[in-house]
Amino acid sequence: MMANRKLKYWGWGYEDTGLDADETRSLMATFANGFDIQASRDGSFPSLDAIELPTCRLDISAALSKVCTDDKFERVYHAFGQSQADSIRTYNGDFEHAPDVVAFPETDRHISELYEWADKVGAAVIPWGAGSSVVGGVTSDVSSKFNGTISVDMGRMNKVIEVDKVSRAARIQGGARGPEIEAQLKPHGLTLRHFPQSFEHSTFGGWIATRSGGHFATLYTHIDDLVEATTTVTPAGNVVSRRLPGSGAGPSPDRFVAMGSEGALGIITEGWARLQGRPTFKGTAGFRFNNFFDAARAVRAVSQAGLFPANVRIVDSTELQVNGVGDGSFTLMVISFESADHPVDAWMTRAEQCCLDHGAVVDVEWRDNPEAHLQGAVGAWRTAFIRMPYNREQLTPRGIISDTFETAITWDQFEEFYESIRETTRTAIRDVTGHAGAVSCRFSHAYPDGPAPYFAFHAPGDPGNMLAQWREIKSRSSDALIRHGGTITHHHAVGRDHQKWYERQRPALFGDVLKDAKKRLDPKGLLNPGVIVG
Amino acid sequence: MMANRKLKYWGWGYEDTGLDADETRSLMATFANGFDIQASRDGSFPSLDAIELPTCRLDISAALSKVCTDDKFERVYHAFGQSQADSIRTYNGDFEHAPDVVAFPETDRHISELYEWADKVGAAVIPWGAGSSVVGGVTSDVSSKFNGTISVDMGRMNKVIEVDKVSRAARIQGGARGPEIEAQLKPHGLTLRHFPQSFEHSTFGGWIATRSGGHFATLYTHIDDLVEATTTVTPAGNVVSRRLPGSGAGPSPDRFVAMGSEGALGIITEGWARLQGRPTFKGTAGFRFNNFFDAARAVRAVSQAGLFPANVRIVDSTELQVNGVGDGSFTLMVISFESADHPVDAWMTRAEQCCLDHGAVVDVEWRDNPEAHLQGAVGAWRTAFIRMPYNREQLTPRGIISDTFETAITWDQFEEFYESIRETTRTAIRDVTGHAGAVSCRFSHAYPDGPAPYFAFHAPGDPGNMLAQWREIKSRSSDALIRHGGTITHHHAVGRDHQKWYERQRPALFGDVLKDAKKRLDPKGLLNPGVIVG
Repeated sequence: MMANRKLKYWGWGYEDTGLDADETRSLMATFANGFDIQASRDGSFPSLDAIELPTCRLDISAALSKVCTDDKFERVYHAFGQSQADSIRTYNGDFEHAPDVVAFPETDRHISELYEWADKVGAAVIPWGAGSSVVGGVTSDVSSKFNGTISVDMGRMNKVIEVDKVSRAARIQGGARGPEIEAQLKPHGLTLRHFPQSFEHSTFGGWIATRSGGHFATLYTHIDDLVEATTTVTPAGNVVSRRLPGSGAGPSPDRFVAMGSEGALGIITEGWARLQGRPTFKGTAGFRFNNFFDAARAVRAVSQAGLFPANVRIVDSTELQVNGVGDGSFTLMVISFESADHPVDAWMTRAEQCCLDHGAVVDVEWRDNPEAHLQGAVGAWRTAFIRMPYNREQLTPRGIISDTFETAITWDQFEEFYESIRETTRTAIRDVTGHAGAVSCRFSHAYPDGPAPYFAFHAPGDPGNMLAQWREIKSRSSDALIRHGGTITHHHAVGRDHQKWYERQRPALFGDVLKDAKKRLDPKGLLNPGVIVG
Repeated sequence: MMANRKLKYWGWGYEDTGLDADETRSLMATFANGFDIQASRDGSFPSLDAIELPTCRLDISAALSKVCTDDKFERVYHAFGQSQADSIRTYNGDFEHAPDVVAFPETDRHISELYEWADKVGAAVIPWGAGSSVVGGVTSDVSSKFNGTISVDMGRMNKVIEVDKVSRAARIQGGARGPEIEAQLKPHGLTLRHFPQSFEHSTFGGWIATRSGGHFATLYTHIDDLVEATTTVTPAGNVVSRRLPGSGAGPSPDRFVAMGSEGALGIITEGWARLQGRPTFKGTAGFRFNNFFDAARAVRAVSQAGLFPANVRIVDSTELQVNGVGDGSFTLMVISFESADHPVDAWMTRAEQCCLDHGAVVDVEWRDNPEAHLQGAVGAWRTAFIRMPYNREQLTPRGIISDTFETAITWDQFEEFYESIRETTRTAIRDVTGHAGAVSCRFSHAYPDGPAPYFAFHAPGDPGNMLAQWREIKSRSSDALIRHGGTITHHHAVGRDHQKWYERQRPALFGDVLKDAKKRLDPKGLLNPGVIVG
């Protein structure tokens, strides 16, 4: 299937997918009418022919020739992830840093051999899942001290190796993408149900390395909680943890060497994941609130009630408007429960009451309504959400800055935090672009002790100066996240783009511990330099 | 309150608590009749006067004199935790390794000063919560290369410093014991609901350091999930993590420096804990099963149903009998739900069906029965469970070996694992003591992918040889746990007693990473030597 479909190097997904002309027109009209955001140009991304690549500096060894290439498309494709900076630089044809070689290992042994080769020739190694990083995690920018760069694409290690139906767990290779995982689990009646927005083009190993946040808005928010064991191939050897449903034997190896290591300590080649039965009982409801804080209080009530909905997301009026949903007069809540075991009516009934207690008005009724998720503002938001990753490739060539950042904060601090972050970002946009732009917010995940607010911003940029403009806005909002007690990332990861703020966030001594671990596992510092360990 | 109550150095809790003569007689009768376990002596623990202590080798500095003592009782009391070995050695009057000094710091600064002093004089430092370790975690056995030992009792740092009712969280000092925490939270209508069997004599910091398992049989099984942030005072400085409901920014500092560090990397002086509303809706049911595996399958069904009961514990017929409950003909399941928010009938109804599907017979009916937890085998087991920590101080002086060990395993391996561990332990008891003894099992916690089986064994020992006998049985059962894929501990921790097996369990390279972290945070290796980092 995938063999015939070519991936875009300039945007999201396959060449034959994307916004159509109507969708793009509608997006631009929304921006122009609601937010004073106009295109400043009408350009296009450079063709492959037009992109100039530096000559490959590495001689692919005979032993690795079957799994390595210096093909132009692959080098271009693997030069960037999916961040705003990546998109602008692609538009600008800035490929000087492109990897010299792209490797497609098929075994752990291949990866060890790649490390040995990289060590010998003084090359950097960039682990690559499916390239969906929005934080520069796979962008092959490395210091000039390296004699070359090898991107290691895990795409050929994409199998579900073993399924344990009794424990509801599966052994999955690190390079398996979301749809590949689900397709292989389906015959067993099981599902991982980890559906980040990047689901189609992100991998199991990448999810673990970045502590990905997925489908579940509560409880199993991060992939962390769905992982039973991991195998990480490091330059110093393999770290293989034991398959255990729970343990209290010392600090967790999975949660240090694998989860959150972002390719800086090793490559996660496989792991055991905890699975779910395929849900047969589902319920979705939509509620409208007059303001975002009422909706947030309803989310808090639901989160603290111990109901554990699969979804309990709120979207502010601006975020709805930017995405062509609603008229800017209400905040939307989408709440859903699902189970492979029992009807969810008792759960939904109580959650609904929590919402009504906080001034909710029904947008979509859940009772006897299996199509609820497709109806009303709920359905419109869902469609917009699915299409969202395609927006940027339309916006960058039109000179429109478009980015998101996400964080988490405790409930007691949330309202002030939200106002501060929004105001800082708005001011930054006005200072930098001279326009109002749009700053919006939704909750991606919710905990009993606080939400994970997910901000988006859009602004008209100056042609030729977009990268610096974006960097300034991003920098100011990141400063504010750290200053006001948030995390620099709830589930997008650190990457190169957040490293500076991550270093301010983490305890300094823990940073030293991480450096020691890096030295132990990757003594030559070949792996993803500049990420996690500076 | 506590000022007037003296703690036992030879057993559990206060001097004025323990089994009465009837309870002890009944315990011994059960052992003798059911399991061929007879007392081999009728001795008593040595009096404080009779215990010989080596002279204190350390001069308490003037600066620290207010928080340090070489008082005999304190040195004796802090020489041991609550393990079987500790009990036997106390009986034997083996106090040569007793700490020279016991410190009671009141501030982080005191702890740093204690480190400086220990460093200067070459003393080891043993962090002490409330001394409930059953794995030698606080037993002050250190190598002769140290010039002395300082036990650091955290008992004076026992405050709930701050309560955040909005986020339902509290900032709690590391030395606060369970009852102290709950008493300080009660006026706020909140509760931590972390009730390990050691609840009365264990601390918040100790729970975090040992990854304690508490009240909840599912979901929030370990304290790990209830902790939002930690402060750890290390010899290299303080590691203070940010208060966050969730984060994806690199590997979790809490889960490496604090959770599972067992006093080897630093002392946890405070942390933010996630709280619960005080439950107003409760339901408990009891079920009997003909055999343990049917009951285990019912636990699996409930665990995989996504119902998250507070309790879903099964107790095999031997464990019931040893504790004077039942006639050895059935396995008991106790299942309960609780909520501060909503009635739990829908949850309980479905869980009950899962049990009935697996051959359960009702022991105690939950409907309209608020006293269910006090009735039938459920109530009898509950009483036995609460009194259990007092058994050992009666058994050791009678020459009866009595210990427990706990683990976790995936469901697919469970039945074979259970048979192997039980058989290995039975054979070891027979080989070592010449008697059958009793080996029993219950589940302490349950996960969708596997249970946490908790084994107990009892056997008649030879006076004068009990320690070696216990060690041999413990060693063989530990070998079996590791050989058959389990963890050496699910929630009792590693301590000195499990270190050998922990080193086999953890990935070797991760062991090196831990050693590096130890060197970074505790460069002189003063802290709890022999634990976690060998």
